[in-house]
Amino acid sequence: MDNFEFYNPTKIVFGKGVENQVGAETAKYAKKVLIHFGGGSAIKSGLLDRVRASLKSAGVEFVELGGVQPNPRVTLVREGIELCRKENISFILAVGGGSVIDSAKAIGFGVPVSHDVWDFYEYTKTPEKMLDIGVVLTIPAAGSESSPSSVVSNEEKQLKRGLTNEIMRPRFAFMNPELTFTLPAYQTACGAADIMAHIMERYFTNTKNVEFTDRLCESGLKTIINNVPHVLENPDDYNSRAEIMWTGCVAHNDLFNTGREGDWGSHSIEHEISAIYDVAHGAGLAVVFPAWMKQVYKHDVARFAQFAERVWGLEMDHFNPERTALAGIHRLEAFFSSIGLPVRLSEMEVPADRIPEMAKKCTGSGTTGNFVKLDTAAVTEILNRAK
Amino acid sequence: MDNFEFYNPTKIVFGKGVENQVGAETAKYAKKVLIHFGGGSAIKSGLLDRVRASLKSAGVEFVELGGVQPNPRVTLVREGIELCRKENISFILAVGGGSVIDSAKAIGFGVPVSHDVWDFYEYTKTPEKMLDIGVVLTIPAAGSESSPSSVVSNEEKQLKRGLTNEIMRPRFAFMNPELTFTLPAYQTACGAADIMAHIMERYFTNTKNVEFTDRLCESGLKTIINNVPHVLENPDDYNSRAEIMWTGCVAHNDLFNTGREGDWGSHSIEHEISAIYDVAHGAGLAVVFPAWMKQVYKHDVARFAQFAERVWGLEMDHFNPERTALAGIHRLEAFFSSIGLPVRLSEMEVPADRIPEMAKKCTGSGTTGNFVKLDTAAVTEILNRAK
Repeated sequence: MDNFEFYNPTKIVFGKGVENQVGAETAKYAKKVLIHFGGGSAIKSGLLDRVRASLKSAGVEFVELGGVQPNPRVTLVREGIELCRKENISFILAVGGGSVIDSAKAIGFGVPVSHDVWDFYEYTKTPEKMLDIGVVLTIPAAGSESSPSSVVSNEEKQLKRGLTNEIMRPRFAFMNPELTFTLPAYQTACGAADIMAHIMERYFTNTKNVEFTDRLCESGLKTIINNVPHVLENPDDYNSRAEIMWTGCVAHNDLFNTGREGDWGSHSIEHEISAIYDVAHGAGLAVVFPAWMKQVYKHDVARFAQFAERVWGLEMDHFNPERTALAGIHRLEAFFSSIGLPVRLSEMEVPADRIPEMAKKCTGSGTTGNFVKLDTAAVTEILNRAK
Repeated sequence: MDNFEFYNPTKIVFGKGVENQVGAETAKYAKKVLIHFGGGSAIKSGLLDRVRASLKSAGVEFVELGGVQPNPRVTLVREGIELCRKENISFILAVGGGSVIDSAKAIGFGVPVSHDVWDFYEYTKTPEKMLDIGVVLTIPAAGSESSPSSVVSNEEKQLKRGLTNEIMRPRFAFMNPELTFTLPAYQTACGAADIMAHIMERYFTNTKNVEFTDRLCESGLKTIINNVPHVLENPDDYNSRAEIMWTGCVAHNDLFNTGREGDWGSHSIEHEISAIYDVAHGAGLAVVFPAWMKQVYKHDVARFAQFAERVWGLEMDHFNPERTALAGIHRLEAFFSSIGLPVRLSEMEVPADRIPEMAKKCTGSGTTGNFVKLDTAAVTEILNRAK
């Protein structure tokens, strides 16, 4: 086990109707806030009205900035920064999913500095302070509600960049599983794949002697695997929605990563796909992860056999562990298919002709991933397996 | 799943040699602190010297108060309160195990108030603020390094009382598994039983639809069960010590309790035993828990069968689940015996003649426990099973 630090100070308020308490909690931090949100669903569902009412009853003033898109844009972030400065705002309440929260984080550390916020995403500057952030979560997937990271896209430069810094963890996250009843089946499945990918990126490690965190990861994966079919069949299944929502948060708050090094190769490969093609991040991950596994499993057959046995309940073939390892990968792929996700690039209408370009952008002059260091040729091979 | 709040802001710094960074972390909170510790082991091992050196090099002044005993005494707490006032101290660094940390917490909320600190443990007053606390942990067991609770004994009144309040969570906990190499086998085993009990108190619940937290609990239990035999055989096994130490912390930080109600009957019964007899808390729990299980398992055979199958790897007898449930209880009992713990009161030289008295004190005019509400007669029966 590696030495580690773990600090996760986001207060979670979880359950039915909790969004009605958000005003009282927000009032602990600010008297005037920015409500940041996305498109129509938060309006249509009446959620935004309930949040406004809760803020008003707690005596918290607010201004609003909606319109966050999936793959949140730096142009809207810049608009938010100007608005916060003009209105003298010190707290941002993100009402939405990962894109809204990531956009709010970017506004949060853009406000105190005089240079362009995109500099942080080019890694030429490091954020040292930021406005406080609070969250009312509507989509379990990204884990951004208690994670220290933010992914933002720069339309002009055609870049999608992630930033991680411990100062980014929100002060609080209100999580009501009822708010996810209306998520379409495909978005629910994409969220599940994203959550599973967050766990699997941590699970496939070269760090030895990580039994507790292995088992925590397996707990999360099994919970998602067991509950997603229920909510696809019955979108209003509160308890299964709750299992998914809470697992999705813990999956990415770094507890499952304590004392071990994660991989993150599949995420970096997927980012190249969704930077070019209009595909959902979770769908992209469902395509990339099995292909990545087929490429790398021989590096540590024991770990893949453990994954197969403990996560998928497959019987270990003690005389041929490789067979067990492969069976686990096939089960993952079959699971993704069964919940309506693509497992090949062609199913997402992503053609094969730009594979060399994506592989090159993904690895630059070096490699990607930690479990196995993947060079351009290896990433090309993975994308070819995913065709 | 029940609605819940979860807020665990203790910063964990975990691994080899981390105690040497404690000065720098402490300096973020105070320029002068109280070092609070127990008996000789922190001195003999050189740990206290390293902590002093780390504080000095960070420019943090300190005064010291040692002598905390297992079942920490309110008389020493009062001494600590006076010392902090006299020396104008606003931060307490606890160097030790659960007793030292619990004592430090009591000093922490005793300092700001004019009434006696014991009033908090009589529940006639509620702490509203306290000095900041930091921890260098030496014994994985109590989980007090990131928990919001403190247990203190009043020698004059022959009472042992626990207090829970979210303000009590320490600011940070430095956890170096190497510091646990010198723990005697019996103390190691008692710590393991305490950790397992913290998880099982949460596991046996009437709350339905708690799959994720069930699985998290099982992860913790399996990790302890797998690693304790290794450290008993080889006390310097860093990785197994690390698994136990990290599991012991997470076991009691309330994550495993999110969305569900715990039981805590076995803890309350054990407190009555150790309030009269000089037995280690963990040993008392090893005696009480299997007896409690035999008393209550019929209340939810499915849950006990799940415990047997998932935690102990027993094959489910689908035609006779009760048999599986009982087999799991027997496995727990056999495990405690195998690591050198008593599983009967007689093995701790606790006679049976005060069972009625203990049962009465434990339940008062009501009941104890949530999974099954136990009245005096039920607790008597449990203690008789444990004879």
